[in-house]
Amino acid sequence: MKLAMVDDRITSFESLDPAYFDRGLYFGDGVYEVLRSYNGKIFALEEHMQRFAASLAAIRITNIDIRVIRERVERAFKKACLPNAKIYFHVTRGSAPRNHTWKPDLKPNFFLTVSELTDNPEEKARGITVCTHPDWRWKRCDIKSLNLLPNILARQDAADKGCDEAILVDDAGFITEGAGSAFFAMIAKALQTAPLSANILPSITRQFVVRAAIGVGLAVEQRCLTPQQAAAADELFIAVTTKDIVPVVKFDGTAIGKGTPGPYTKAIMTEFRKFTA
Amino acid sequence: MKLAMVDDRITSFESLDPAYFDRGLYFGDGVYEVLRSYNGKIFALEEHMQRFAASLAAIRITNIDIRVIRERVERAFKKACLPNAKIYFHVTRGSAPRNHTWKPDLKPNFFLTVSELTDNPEEKARGITVCTHPDWRWKRCDIKSLNLLPNILARQDAADKGCDEAILVDDAGFITEGAGSAFFAMIAKALQTAPLSANILPSITRQFVVRAAIGVGLAVEQRCLTPQQAAAADELFIAVTTKDIVPVVKFDGTAIGKGTPGPYTKAIMTEFRKFTA
Repeated sequence: MKLAMVDDRITSFESLDPAYFDRGLYFGDGVYEVLRSYNGKIFALEEHMQRFAASLAAIRITNIDIRVIRERVERAFKKACLPNAKIYFHVTRGSAPRNHTWKPDLKPNFFLTVSELTDNPEEKARGITVCTHPDWRWKRCDIKSLNLLPNILARQDAADKGCDEAILVDDAGFITEGAGSAFFAMIAKALQTAPLSANILPSITRQFVVRAAIGVGLAVEQRCLTPQQAAAADELFIAVTTKDIVPVVKFDGTAIGKGTPGPYTKAIMTEFRKFTA
Repeated sequence: MKLAMVDDRITSFESLDPAYFDRGLYFGDGVYEVLRSYNGKIFALEEHMQRFAASLAAIRITNIDIRVIRERVERAFKKACLPNAKIYFHVTRGSAPRNHTWKPDLKPNFFLTVSELTDNPEEKARGITVCTHPDWRWKRCDIKSLNLLPNILARQDAADKGCDEAILVDDAGFITEGAGSAFFAMIAKALQTAPLSANILPSITRQFVVRAAIGVGLAVEQRCLTPQQAAAADELFIAVTTKDIVPVVKFDGTAIGKGTPGPYTKAIMTEFRKFTA
């Protein structure tokens, strides 16, 4: 008869939590979002929900009411009573015996966690170090999917080298983005970042960074940079929901500017705080 | 306080099965194998175990004794008492709060299922239809990882078009392999398949197909084909553990040969059966 085994223990299919048969686990067949709150208010909830809806549609999970997801996010956040919270959630296509194709009536699985987010002002004041890694990801990085093995391998490689983030470089020799962040450079008084494409996650924080840069009077140019151009930039920083803006002070071993967070980055960080107040 | 939510239900982290916090689910941070048995004997167990060890090493899961995995596979297979069984198993890096980097002491999770495998002689006699799909996969398809979203999206797209398999085509316009199978063509009396590379899974069945082809006196050429070359081939077939060899009789709507399984394919199938007897 058919059976399952978890570590050393043989068991029946029926005795196991449906999580063991989740297509999210078998195939990474799901999409996710990470949100944060500042002082009791979820930041950019609408933008995250819109992106999540786009991710769901892109992988053809169609039987989800986005309003239900939003209500769950808000309910869980309220219940957790954490003013500065990190909210993670995903939807997978559902639990079913392993088969590449899916049945249209499969019930999607929703999973969410809320946990306390502790800011790291020292890191923001000091800046972080980054190193490059080949961009091994798939060709639809605009979808925020659970297929993140290349991201975590790159990030761990960076950590092993004493770096805080991996900056991904495509086959053509251009930087796409960080393993878990958007990447920005200040060159000749203009903020530079890669244009959105199928290889880039449409970062929510990026939208607000661009708005903040314009707010402090900077030009914004969307173009792809090489690692050499990045290492020679006046300033660098990354942007990610959980940390918003973090200055980069070393790139592949090369000190950026004076090796401390630069004035334009600081100005953008100050402007960004207006959005989160 | 921190909390979790499963579908509509708010709960504590502690009340949930560790499967909910599996890095295999969060990131696809794991590798897998699919084996089958013929008449009570697992086919190519040694080869699958060697490939699995290579996959584990490639994603840096180092604290696994492959002999323990092999013992579990054999024990579960024996317990299931299924002469013709499909055995699926994976190892993930373990369960932990979501964080890109991992701690070296994390305990890996092992999961296995054994289920009955029903052969489909009609499909083998009739042949299947396939259609092409862009190869959206990551750059390390030689690793049999749980990051399979591009594979299942391609396979579902094929199914929606009434096809049984998607044949993946890279940016340069060459066929890599099937979404869940190796791909072969007979052209000018030589068996052709793409050379192994970082973009190709080192298929176990492929090894035996090549051996069978040589056994029946055919030349084997490892080269990349375009969809146009494939559509004009004398014969086509796919190879996959669960079905071994399946003739392809239609490629992107074009009938292959006489639209029925060709003589060389049949000869290779007959020769292959010697390995499984």
